[in-house]
Formats: sequence, C-alpha cells, structure tokens
Amino acid sequence: MSNIPAPPILLTPGPLTTSDRTRRAMLRDWGSWDGDFNQITQRVRQRLLDIANAADTHECIPMQGSGTFSVEAAIGTLVPRNGHVLVPSNGAYCQRLARICRVLDRKTGTLDYAENQQVSASDIDRRLAADPSITHVAMVHCETGAGVLNPLHDIAMVVARHGRSLIVDAMSSFGALEIDAAQTPFDAVIAASGKCLEGVPGMGFVIIRRAILEKCEGNSHSLALDLYDQWVYMQKTTQWRFTPPTHVVAALDEAITQYLDEGGLPARGGRYARNCAALISGMEAIGIRSYLAPSIQAPIIVTFHAPDHPNYDFKTFYQEVKKRGYILYPGKLTQIETFRVGCIGHFGEAGIPGAVEAIAQTMKAMGIARDTAAVTA
Amino acid sequence: MSNIPAPPILLTPGPLTTSDRTRRAMLRDWGSWDGDFNQITQRVRQRLLDIANAADTHECIPMQGSGTFSVEAAIGTLVPRNGHVLVPSNGAYCQRLARICRVLDRKTGTLDYAENQQVSASDIDRRLAADPSITHVAMVHCETGAGVLNPLHDIAMVVARHGRSLIVDAMSSFGALEIDAAQTPFDAVIAASGKCLEGVPGMGFVIIRRAILEKCEGNSHSLALDLYDQWVYMQKTTQWRFTPPTHVVAALDEAITQYLDEGGLPARGGRYARNCAALISGMEAIGIRSYLAPSIQAPIIVTFHAPDHPNYDFKTFYQEVKKRGYILYPGKLTQIETFRVGCIGHFGEAGIPGAVEAIAQTMKAMGIARDTAAVTA
Repeated sequence: MSNIPAPPILLTPGPLTTSDRTRRAMLRDWGSWDGDFNQITQRVRQRLLDIANAADTHECIPMQGSGTFSVEAAIGTLVPRNGHVLVPSNGAYCQRLARICRVLDRKTGTLDYAENQQVSASDIDRRLAADPSITHVAMVHCETGAGVLNPLHDIAMVVARHGRSLIVDAMSSFGALEIDAAQTPFDAVIAASGKCLEGVPGMGFVIIRRAILEKCEGNSHSLALDLYDQWVYMQKTTQWRFTPPTHVVAALDEAITQYLDEGGLPARGGRYARNCAALISGMEAIGIRSYLAPSIQAPIIVTFHAPDHPNYDFKTFYQEVKKRGYILYPGKLTQIETFRVGCIGHFGEAGIPGAVEAIAQTMKAMGIARDTAAVTA
Repeated sequence: MSNIPAPPILLTPGPLTTSDRTRRAMLRDWGSWDGDFNQITQRVRQRLLDIANAADTHECIPMQGSGTFSVEAAIGTLVPRNGHVLVPSNGAYCQRLARICRVLDRKTGTLDYAENQQVSASDIDRRLAADPSITHVAMVHCETGAGVLNPLHDIAMVVARHGRSLIVDAMSSFGALEIDAAQTPFDAVIAASGKCLEGVPGMGFVIIRRAILEKCEGNSHSLALDLYDQWVYMQKTTQWRFTPPTHVVAALDEAITQYLDEGGLPARGGRYARNCAALISGMEAIGIRSYLAPSIQAPIIVTFHAPDHPNYDFKTFYQEVKKRGYILYPGKLTQIETFRVGCIGHFGEAGIPGAVEAIAQTMKAMGIARDTAAVTA
C-alpha cells in the first residue's frame, strides 16, 4: 500500500475510518446473479439479525443507498397510506424523519424537545393515550444532531403497551448500543453499513417483524424503496431486485466478521464509550466544554462549544486540525456555535488523544490560548 | 495482491469486471463533508456532462443506489403528478420503466413491440399526434432484456418536434454509444456507475436540461429520490444531501480517468463493438446462434439461443462455464430458452475468445456435441 498516502482519521459519524481489511474486501468484482455473491448477502442478513437477537421474529432486508434511503423505505413500506405517525423530536435527524413522513403523505405529528434534552417515554405515553388515531411511533435512537441517546427501551415498552407500532432509526447506534428484540419490542429497526459496524457507506438495512412485513404489500409509494417487494424477491431468488452495491456488501461482510472477532456489541460499544470518555475529558483539559449533560450523551458523537474567542472560525479550525491528521464534523445546532467529534470508527487507541493534541496545537496556532478558550455557562 | 484469488471474468451487463486501478481507488476513506471528497464529486459531475456534450445546457445530478433508483428519481422529479408518460416497450427494462411510472401514480401508456424488434420513431410520431395529453416519452436506449439498440436520435427528433419531453434510460449505453446533447435533444438521460464507464455499482446519475430542472420543485414523491432537492443542496454546499457512497464515487472518478485515457467514447464503444462481433462469430462457429438480427443488436450484451439438446440445462451450463473462468448471464425472454453474454467490462483482448473456448469445452463436457447444438429457425 506504499503508493496510498496516509489519509486523515475521520472523526465523523459515518462515513468513518474503516480497517484495511474491510477496504481490501472491495478488491474483487462479484456477479450480482452469482451464488457466491448471494451467499454473502444471506450471511450479512443473518448476522445482522443475530446482532439484534431478532432471527426468530424478524427479517433483515438490505436496501441500496444511504441510511436515509432505508429510513424512507421503512416509513413507506410499514406505514399504510392512512396511517398516522408520531415523531418525538430532539434534533435534525428526528426532523428529517418527520419530513420523510410528510413527503410520503402520511399524517404526521411531532413531540418537540430542546436539542439538549432526551425525548420522554411518559410524554409519548400520554400522547398515545390521548390520540388513538396514532398508528406508529417513529423515533431516532441516537440523535447525532447533538449526540443525545434517546431512551429506546422505555419508549418501546410504552408503544407496545398501547398496541402501536414502533419504527426505530438506529443509524448511529446499531451494533454499539444494545437493541435486543427479545427485550425491546419493535416492528422495525433501521441502520446502515457505514456506521458502528465500520463498513463503507452505500447500503442500509431494515430489521422488520415478520408478522408485520407479511402485511405490507402495496403500502410503498416507491418501487425502488419497497422493502416488501425487495423481501419477497430475495426470498424467492436469494438475489437483490436491482443491482446491489456488490463491493459495499462484500466490505460489510468483512467488517461484520471483524466486529464479531472483536467481541461483538459489548466490545464495540465499550471501545466507543472509552473513546467518548477520553475525548470529553481530554477536551475539557484544553478548555473545550462538551454541550450535553453526561447522563444523556451517547458514546457516538460529541458536540462541543466552539472556543469563545474572536480568532475562532470553524473553517480555519477544521483545516488546521485536518492538516494535523484528523477530520472533524461541523455542529448542527441552530442557536449555538458548536462543532462535533465522532467517537466511532476503526482507529487505534492513540486516535482520541491524538485528536485532542491536534486540536490543542490548532488552538495555539490560531492564537486561542487555553485561558481565553474557556466558555461561560 | 497475491492473497486475492483470480476471480472469474464477469460477462454480465453490470456489475462487470473493473480494472485493478479502479478497485484500488476504494482503499481510502473519505469524509463526506470534506473539500477533498467534494472536489471528486464535482469532477465526476463535470466529466459526465462532457461525455454527453451537455455542459452548456444540462446539469448532472448523482444519486445513491442502483441505476433503477436514478430511473425512479428521474420519473418522480421530472414528470409532474398530472403528467402522462408514453413508454415504447420492447423488453424487461422498458416494462420496469412503465411499472415505475405506474407505482408513482403517473398516467402511463405503452407502445408494445416484440422483444426482437426495435421501437419505432414513426409509431411514436403517430401516437403523439393522436394524443396531445402525452407530456413525456420515457424510453430505454439499449434494452438489455434481449440486447436491442433503440433508435434514440430518431425518437428524440420526433419528441422534440411535438414539443414533448424525452427521458432516456441510457443505463447500459452511456459512455459507449453516442449521446450528444447538441445533436439529440433530450430532457433527461439516466445512467449508472457500474456499466460502460466501468466503475463499481452503487450510484447512478441523471443529466437533466437545466431549464426543465429549475421547474421541478415539489414534483417528487420521495425525499431520498428527489433530484431537484439533491441539485439545489449540491449547488449550495458542494455536498450530497445524504451520505454518499464515498468509495464508489472515488472508484467512478478513477474509472472515468481511465475512460478518457483510453480515448473516450469512440475507443470504448469500438472495443465493445469488436468484443460483440468476436463473440457472435465465435459462438456461431461452435453452433450457438445469436437471437437478434445484426442490424438491431447493441454491442453491449448478446442473447443466444440455448443449445437445443436434452442434456442442456442453464444451471449446469453456467456452473461449468464459471469453473472455466467466466460468469454468464441468464436469458430474460419469456417465450424462448436463451442465455446472455455481456460484451462490456475491463478484460483483455483474450476475454471473448477465452469465453467462447470455455463454452465450447462446457458443451463437450455436457455431451452437447457441436453437430447437435445447431438450433432450428
């Protein structure tokens, strides 16, 4: 690999830094009709189900495109055209979920929270009790807009008690934070290849309760994004309906093998939690304060207050940190100037301390001395 | 690369065999927000426009997913909800195009032909004259169901004369068969990464007339597949709206560089035409007859009559040819037993003679001697 220059480490919530082994799985072409490739697809589907402990009750349907394509596919396939979706909302990805429901002409309501708050299971409980017309709750597990972990299990218990259907956007949590179908009732969980499983981006997947899926024929607004049609065809032929992103699928398969070798969810989630703790304390030591209360911070991506100094601007900051080997992520809050740093991806133990050091050096270079970088509450 | 076993050559119409150089472009991760990656996206878009000689008049909008996702995106974005689409149909991909229009609730009519016939510009002329309510003609340039080349230029002139809008599925022709926006009027041309440009599968793109695109706000039935929204966001930010398949985009960029180095469309199309001619004559010499008349055969994929022998079955035939290093494609005709062989992809001059030799050996191994393999007309 001597002709490939060392690229910066991505501290972004997907695409993220993948392993050499995962990327090298893309060095071969596969026929999309061929049995060898279809075995890979079947193995990926089975192992994704196993990660969610859902093999007995659910089906895993892969979908071409980014994670958002799978979110839209799940809403379109699962929610009947006369359905009514409630979206508890505390950030940009919840808003996108609600926007998808509206573009798809499904009746949609939201329960709105500030970006630094968790959504509340008891609020949802009251709303479902008050409005029996609500058929589905569609929620984001880890809202990466600010980085909040939403209480999936509590919400799932409430939704199940009311006999409604739960759709979970678990894009940036799946594989790192526990989602156990035997403990946490859900009808659909959506995630993608290029997140905590550390594959490359280009496909998503939806884990759907079989008994629900069987009734979804004709719901979808779309041919390409119809998960029912994709499922029926795949059951019949073992193939994808339309050309699969073969190299991306092969890379995900290889990434899942490494995931299992690492020790599965406890190991992956543990590593990210250590990254997150090291990041927050390291940044605190150089005067950069994280935005969320620790109790609701997911170990996926951390929002930091921008240094409160006239010399600061994000573009320069980003470029200077990148020069030092790390790619940060812009903030997504509307009211406050922030930036984000991801905790996920395949980088060594030195990755987080290295990033903190790069940020410290950048602050020095930009004339944002440690003392003046402290922000007021 | 010594640890990667030599895979079979794909004689399939995408995914196809790509070059080492193209696959090796996927050995690096890219941040989807980062300027370095966005430069790649811009370069790909610009060079795709140039290939169609469309930079002055059209925009190129990339779309995640397989080519079919881009076809659906084009129909959904360009055809208003009260539009009326005419689909001239001579095969499976035309039927899929019509199905997409119907799933999207656009009024749809077809002009039906046999699978071994070209669609006819004069039939379309008459139909458009007779029905002024038709707003769009949506056609397939190369119908890979049987392998027919449809007369794009003649149809485009007819549609333009009637002042209607033309949408072209050029999935398996773009880059190999001439489509020149200055000569052939079209409002949209759709293709994908993993076809004649010899990239890997995972993204499509639509080249849309700018004056039309500007009026497409709100047409789309989908958020993910809204090309207008994708375009507006990309113009504003240089980024994709939702996570791009970064490795697939980088591979396409590298594949286009090789395409231009090879000599662009004349060289690529010429190589495929030589492959096609060598394939048809080589197969004829071993008693396997092609299905289409030479005058309407596109140099992309060839349908052959299956050997008319009781020992023949496609599954065994496929596996035996695969053992000998080549992956074939099943037939897609409803009435006659056929199989298909692609002419496209990155394989050396020996690829086609090698495939013919593998097929000859297979026929011997299966006890389908040359004399008995001849089919009756």
